Amino acid sequence: MPERDLQYLSDLAAQLRVDSVRSSAAAESGHPTSSMSAADLMAVLFTCHLHYDFARPEDPANDHLIFSKGHASPLLYSLYKAAGALTDEELLSFRKQGSPLEGHPTPRLPWVDVATGSLGQGLPVGVGIALAGRLERLPYRVWVLCGDGELAEGSIWEAAEHAGDAGLANLTLIVDVNRLGQRGPTRHGWDTGAYARRFGAFGWHTIEIDGHDPGQVDFALSDARNTRRRPTVILAKTRKGEGVLEVENREGAHGKALKDPDAAIDALGGPRDITVDVHRPEAGAEPYRFEGGSLSLPEYAVGERVATRTAYGEALAAVGAARGDVLALDGEVADSTKTQEFATAFPERFFEMYIAEQQLVAAAIGLQVRGWIPYAATFAAFLTRAHDFIRMAAVSRASIRLVGSHAGVSIGEDGPSQMGLEDLAMMRAVHGSTVLYPCDANQAAALTAAMADLDGVSYLRTTRGETPVIYPPGERFSVGGSRVLRHSPSDRATIVTAGVTVHEALAAADELAGQGVQVGVIDLYSIKPVDAAALAEAATTTGNLITVEDHRPEGGLGDAVLDAVSELGPRVMKLAVRDLPGSATPAQQLSDARIDRHAIAEAVKRLL
Amino acid sequence: MPERDLQYLSDLAAQLRVDSVRSSAAAESGHPTSSMSAADLMAVLFTCHLHYDFARPEDPANDHLIFSKGHASPLLYSLYKAAGALTDEELLSFRKQGSPLEGHPTPRLPWVDVATGSLGQGLPVGVGIALAGRLERLPYRVWVLCGDGELAEGSIWEAAEHAGDAGLANLTLIVDVNRLGQRGPTRHGWDTGAYARRFGAFGWHTIEIDGHDPGQVDFALSDARNTRRRPTVILAKTRKGEGVLEVENREGAHGKALKDPDAAIDALGGPRDITVDVHRPEAGAEPYRFEGGSLSLPEYAVGERVATRTAYGEALAAVGAARGDVLALDGEVADSTKTQEFATAFPERFFEMYIAEQQLVAAAIGLQVRGWIPYAATFAAFLTRAHDFIRMAAVSRASIRLVGSHAGVSIGEDGPSQMGLEDLAMMRAVHGSTVLYPCDANQAAALTAAMADLDGVSYLRTTRGETPVIYPPGERFSVGGSRVLRHSPSDRATIVTAGVTVHEALAAADELAGQGVQVGVIDLYSIKPVDAAALAEAATTTGNLITVEDHRPEGGLGDAVLDAVSELGPRVMKLAVRDLPGSATPAQQLSDARIDRHAIAEAVKRLL
Repeated sequence: MPERDLQYLSDLAAQLRVDSVRSSAAAESGHPTSSMSAADLMAVLFTCHLHYDFARPEDPANDHLIFSKGHASPLLYSLYKAAGALTDEELLSFRKQGSPLEGHPTPRLPWVDVATGSLGQGLPVGVGIALAGRLERLPYRVWVLCGDGELAEGSIWEAAEHAGDAGLANLTLIVDVNRLGQRGPTRHGWDTGAYARRFGAFGWHTIEIDGHDPGQVDFALSDARNTRRRPTVILAKTRKGEGVLEVENREGAHGKALKDPDAAIDALGGPRDITVDVHRPEAGAEPYRFEGGSLSLPEYAVGERVATRTAYGEALAAVGAARGDVLALDGEVADSTKTQEFATAFPERFFEMYIAEQQLVAAAIGLQVRGWIPYAATFAAFLTRAHDFIRMAAVSRASIRLVGSHAGVSIGEDGPSQMGLEDLAMMRAVHGSTVLYPCDANQAAALTAAMADLDGVSYLRTTRGETPVIYPPGERFSVGGSRVLRHSPSDRATIVTAGVTVHEALAAADELAGQGVQVGVIDLYSIKPVDAAALAEAATTTGNLITVEDHRPEGGLGDAVLDAVSELGPRVMKLAVRDLPGSATPAQQLSDARIDRHAIAEAVKRLL
Repeated sequence: MPERDLQYLSDLAAQLRVDSVRSSAAAESGHPTSSMSAADLMAVLFTCHLHYDFARPEDPANDHLIFSKGHASPLLYSLYKAAGALTDEELLSFRKQGSPLEGHPTPRLPWVDVATGSLGQGLPVGVGIALAGRLERLPYRVWVLCGDGELAEGSIWEAAEHAGDAGLANLTLIVDVNRLGQRGPTRHGWDTGAYARRFGAFGWHTIEIDGHDPGQVDFALSDARNTRRRPTVILAKTRKGEGVLEVENREGAHGKALKDPDAAIDALGGPRDITVDVHRPEAGAEPYRFEGGSLSLPEYAVGERVATRTAYGEALAAVGAARGDVLALDGEVADSTKTQEFATAFPERFFEMYIAEQQLVAAAIGLQVRGWIPYAATFAAFLTRAHDFIRMAAVSRASIRLVGSHAGVSIGEDGPSQMGLEDLAMMRAVHGSTVLYPCDANQAAALTAAMADLDGVSYLRTTRGETPVIYPPGERFSVGGSRVLRHSPSDRATIVTAGVTVHEALAAADELAGQGVQVGVIDLYSIKPVDAAALAEAATTTGNLITVEDHRPEGGLGDAVLDAVSELGPRVMKLAVRDLPGSATPAQQLSDARIDRHAIAEAVKRLL
């Protein structure tokens, strides 16, 4: 590289450091030192290798850059400024109320694909975007900047395995090995060889460089672009706080604005106003999209016994036939979740993520960045593995569809490790989520189809065992709705439930009616948003609600009902799984948990 | 190995297969084929290498065996029978209602340390037990049996990294590489070299063998026992369903009882009644324990401003001085969670788990298996990474203490990725959990100390910012209690809250009192169990409750209150974080989320 170019890169890196110090100083917080270590890496990437049109962030041919080390946001925003996308005034709004320049990047800025800040997430999400690039047959590249500390996260190795095995040559991981974590030194310090051995074993091309030498950085990035059939990791030895002696390579300088920013800016050669003309991608690229057709959902006859998981599988295959943008992912249990139907019909749009639920959800997040409509399924219990990714998906404003099968004690003999008993609580607490829990096959099919058009994180809870079909084919179920299944003017209480226990509630209502006690039954298939109007109606007419759920008493359907009616003051009795189950048949489990027809009937009598 | 011994091992393995087929046949479900692949491995382990006194499972010198592939429970129970610990009748109670022989192992059997069945958990928990062995200066070994499919879990690589780096030579992982997962072939099939390269890169001693050759298995187990300074992984190539042609090495035979068990038993040479005389450990071993002293909790003057996280750190150090069995673990944020206090005072009892929250919680679970009292801390938001381990800790009947700092929007500028806003919902839904949320330093200190004696999974939620001390030093706070902070006979409503918003509620009450509106304030520091009596008192006297929490509206304090008072029918208004925060100062965040003093005062007026 000519001396003139090296000087330019060196000046640009200094500017990025200065701007990181300035924005953090203005905010009186932030992570300037973690930004300074990666400044040379990013200066070279932006100047020589990134292809991105900042005026057209929606351009399908744009590269994707993810700051997995989201705390280095001052560096990212300084890069945006250098690229002409932000003004200096905007840069200095960093971390201020109302500013889209948040402490950690979020898609409030149009050039940010996904929120980061929970470490170890950028690479698995990058795998998803790289998979999208393949589907779309577009040459864009995915660049992920990680810290060295976050390589301890298991999610990194789920991603390393998936990317290595899939040979994602369009994915490059740049690791800013500055050797210092938050509390102190990382496990491997500057031993980039330790990381190279690990990534190498997972099938990656590895390059170890001095991350402050622009020539080496340029060579490594070129090498990554030219590597075929393998993802590349660039392990760059750097110094945290590089350029300012007060903090350079020192412990205790993490996550703080510098004490004397003016002196630091002087040491870095003062403010500059260099602009980077980032390469634009080739114009006119069109992503490949699969053809669709008309939607023909499966139909189940009333009275037939069909598991809702089966209906999900068949409906998803139907949705896949109708829409070429629908994808399915599964965590090596597609025969159980019934995603297998889709996998068989559309192998090119099915992703086997193996037993790696964090990567399962992260890939869905990455795929939706490029406009795909992903459904990701595993056992409801095992979605808890991906809780942090689901939480962050909401911060990313991502639209993903999650499907958890084998909900509740009704799975039977397999026991508590396999039972989704906390999933409703987890999914309800996710910002902006939709939580659906069908009780029959036609309802499950309709909701599966409806999810394709939902924004945000949506969740479908399915049941392992067969349940009778009670709704005719073609019936419409709106998100946020409910169904009154039993109602008479002489109702003395209303049972509110969803899923497998709807059938128990119906049987209880029939049994009670035989004893002269009329009770209503509401199928609350939409747990969030919840049908507050229907619940208010029940609360004010009978004044007595019994909620029933195959889930823990905390955070699930019962709490959703309580929340909806709390200002009306009805009496509410909640039936839920209060003990730790063991093995038993599904019917025994429902009985042991006191959520079967007999327990419901008894509860009604107790309440009245 | 003499021919006679080989024949014995071969016969024993056949018996284990037969008994796995028999118990699954009796249950009409289960995983016989996943049991059959590992039968030779376990026959040799039990006969030649395991040291365990089945009559004294509490013997501190016993080895520890974890079936990470918990679905191979038929094999485990067949081994217990062969070792004389179970009768044949007990064996055939497998998966039946009331039987401790559950579909996946749980500690209802005294020889099972932890529940398994969620894959990828056995190795990280084994790391915890191996760490305990070091602390105790005892020579016991930890043996973990994994499937090959579960090596895709990131938690395996968090454990591989920790064990390799710590040089846990007392830990041996045996991988039953039967090449078939549930849905189909695993990613690497029989390529044991792929796994060997990965574990080797993480610093492990690796051995690749034919898992059906008792001689090779014996050699490998001996080699593992003789290996110093490194953990060992034995990668054993096996055939799923080995011994029965109908299912041997065939897809589609996962997780089902065999179709023709009698023919299978015949093919395996019929039932046998071999007993194994498992080596007992050396008698009289005494685990090393650290000395304790008297408890002298830190004291904070009323009016002082101290963060509850700081009080947690100082109190934990005090508890550590008082009790030699208390340990602390942290996820590379001890300077933020304030576990650093303990780490500095008791370095031998502090474990830096780096940024690997699954391993953080798993190590705590492993350490408590041996009677230690672990506290594991990280940001509340990042505990979601370990949700599946926390869920399974409850199934394991484990007693662990979790501490989540940086709860809620009140952290300020860092933004939503760092805010624990779903942690109360997650922790409340865990079976048998305790959830504590202190508002001042003396309360935080008292609750930190109280946690040491709690059974099950307990959780302390701490706040980043300083809050005024309102309780005098030495005040007692019982788990399940609450504090009435404002109360008068003319109260027209009661504000129920905890943590940082207690101070907002007090300010609101004062403001309202100035306007002639009397309201009560309850500090609900124990979110679970909740003080139902105090809430009922408030519900029946004022009839109007306002709940306030720095958490999502779903599953947290508000839902706990609704649940407690639902049969009394008060009007309840819930204030919580309903929008997606950005960056702002702590005060701005509380205001934006409508949970600050002004929002509370307004809500009271709206409700009345």
